Amino acid sequence: MNKKIAVISTGNGGQAIAAFIALKGYYVSLYAREKERVDMFANNLFHIKGIINDVASIGLISCDMEEVIKDAYLILVTTPAQYHFAVAKEMALYLKTGQVVVLNPGRTFGTYEFNQVLEQNGCNADILLGEADTLVFTCRCDKPGNPHIYEIKKKVKIAGHKKAYTKEITDIMNEIFHDMESAPSVLHTGLSNIGVIFHPLPTLMNITRIEAKEVFRYYIDGISPLVANILEELDKERLETARKAGIELLSVCEWLKERYGSTGNNLYECIQNTHAYSSVLAPFDIDTRYIHEDVQTGCVPISCLAKEMGVKTKIMDSAISWASIIYKKDFYECGRNNKKLDIRKIIDDNLK
Amino acid sequence: MNKKIAVISTGNGGQAIAAFIALKGYYVSLYAREKERVDMFANNLFHIKGIINDVASIGLISCDMEEVIKDAYLILVTTPAQYHFAVAKEMALYLKTGQVVVLNPGRTFGTYEFNQVLEQNGCNADILLGEADTLVFTCRCDKPGNPHIYEIKKKVKIAGHKKAYTKEITDIMNEIFHDMESAPSVLHTGLSNIGVIFHPLPTLMNITRIEAKEVFRYYIDGISPLVANILEELDKERLETARKAGIELLSVCEWLKERYGSTGNNLYECIQNTHAYSSVLAPFDIDTRYIHEDVQTGCVPISCLAKEMGVKTKIMDSAISWASIIYKKDFYECGRNNKKLDIRKIIDDNLK
Repeated sequence: MNKKIAVISTGNGGQAIAAFIALKGYYVSLYAREKERVDMFANNLFHIKGIINDVASIGLISCDMEEVIKDAYLILVTTPAQYHFAVAKEMALYLKTGQVVVLNPGRTFGTYEFNQVLEQNGCNADILLGEADTLVFTCRCDKPGNPHIYEIKKKVKIAGHKKAYTKEITDIMNEIFHDMESAPSVLHTGLSNIGVIFHPLPTLMNITRIEAKEVFRYYIDGISPLVANILEELDKERLETARKAGIELLSVCEWLKERYGSTGNNLYECIQNTHAYSSVLAPFDIDTRYIHEDVQTGCVPISCLAKEMGVKTKIMDSAISWASIIYKKDFYECGRNNKKLDIRKIIDDNLK
Repeated sequence: MNKKIAVISTGNGGQAIAAFIALKGYYVSLYAREKERVDMFANNLFHIKGIINDVASIGLISCDMEEVIKDAYLILVTTPAQYHFAVAKEMALYLKTGQVVVLNPGRTFGTYEFNQVLEQNGCNADILLGEADTLVFTCRCDKPGNPHIYEIKKKVKIAGHKKAYTKEITDIMNEIFHDMESAPSVLHTGLSNIGVIFHPLPTLMNITRIEAKEVFRYYIDGISPLVANILEELDKERLETARKAGIELLSVCEWLKERYGSTGNNLYECIQNTHAYSSVLAPFDIDTRYIHEDVQTGCVPISCLAKEMGVKTKIMDSAISWASIIYKKDFYECGRNNKKLDIRKIIDDNLK
């Protein structure tokens, strides 16, 4: 049998990654949380489109976690980050010492939550746990088994939950994806969470259009000059938090310029000039990961971290409280807060 | 000369009221803050439309406050409430004992702010100061001198700044408008401020559409089921605050049913079935009194009052902080807060 890699989740990212690595010659096992998700695939052949056009054969598609991860040397978790705890709980008893688990991405404090849930659920294996700062592909699936990869992102950052493992995990990832780089710590990958800037606020500020099922371009129409301006202010809160932790990060503008070659004098102009965003549509439903994932696993932990570092995050906090009101859900309570995670310890672990 | 009434402000309400009372045979003097506002009228003839079709002659249109209010037995202030302080400052030295000043409407704590500014600016006159809970007309002006009155509201409530004057002020107002009723105190008129429910939140939740100059029906399209649902929750904060002050008020649903004969099982349905709202368009600019007036003179004072009464106003507070972020203006600071007004004293003055 070829070397086995497990991919956890059958969303856009999971299907794209599964097909991509199957075409590289690995035996791929794909985990779906529910039987209906397994049944949505007509067969194990995935028709990949976009930068690659080919047909990939997936070794196994199953909702049996034990079977999926058994003997896999690498386990790629591609679920929205608010499900990390559920995935960790599910696989805790089946992990074996030496297996490598990478969260794609970890969002903010992903490995800490994952590791904590593993320990609480009896996992004794000494695994190599790490996280990426973003999903390696820009991709979508129009229908099951048909992933479309628009782009392979450059310079995706990898950090080990324990810094000592970072290089080894990066090397393993680079055998498959080629352009990954080691980050100094999970504070770097966690604070490079760009979703927290681009997702919750524009969704909240266009909520009635999304509720009305209006079809509009998320970035081009939804991020108006006013919204872009607030996102720049929000980004300053993220950058200041990072700075207090001794980390210099790219602003979202600089990030767009580096990753996409965008041009412009401000965020509004940069987004308008980002080709990759030109046809991305807004969510079709108010229940979107742009809120549920990015507020719980981005805004909340960054806000908590900022408080520990003495940085005020007025806009981030407002986004959390506004989302909580609109969604009738206490996002602070259900997010990665400092009651769930020992934020002080995370800082001490990772600050130089 | 006929009995003189001064109308302060040349907005929609000011023009409609000026024309309406001129047609009743009063000598009307109309105050405009700037010379350009005076010059926008071709002559002193106002063509009134809607429930009345006639031509009214306005005695005086001027930006000379002294001249406008001189010898007026009644002064009707129809500016957006955030300008009450400026109006009070302007007229402080010219008011004479016995003159009646009515804020139309006072929004929340209008007479307190007005009275305080009069005192601070050397007004020694013993005037009769009062406020209405809402503007007596539903009206618009398509062009200067052409007020359109859609409706005269029923059961408009009047309260005197000093309770002892309430009946006298109501009687004076009823000589002109016929269907005004005395309210027990300015807490009643101030907490009956419906604008605070209907204006800021829907504006904030449709902000990108307003910014894009999209033409949409404010109530019918802008108050989606989601928005209506949050407005009902916001309204509960207002009602609970009133209840703690011993005041039972109509909910916005009940208010729509009483004032407009609306029907429905919830606020969304009631609004959809409110004929008067069917063609009201959203603001054409993000700088709208729906934010500047209603947050400063509605959300802020009600939130402060609620805190004094031990009521939590999570949604009201969120609206204030969200507006502050979007408008880059500290609405709490510039609003009628408990640093500007002695809220505890207002409660003690008015609680039974």
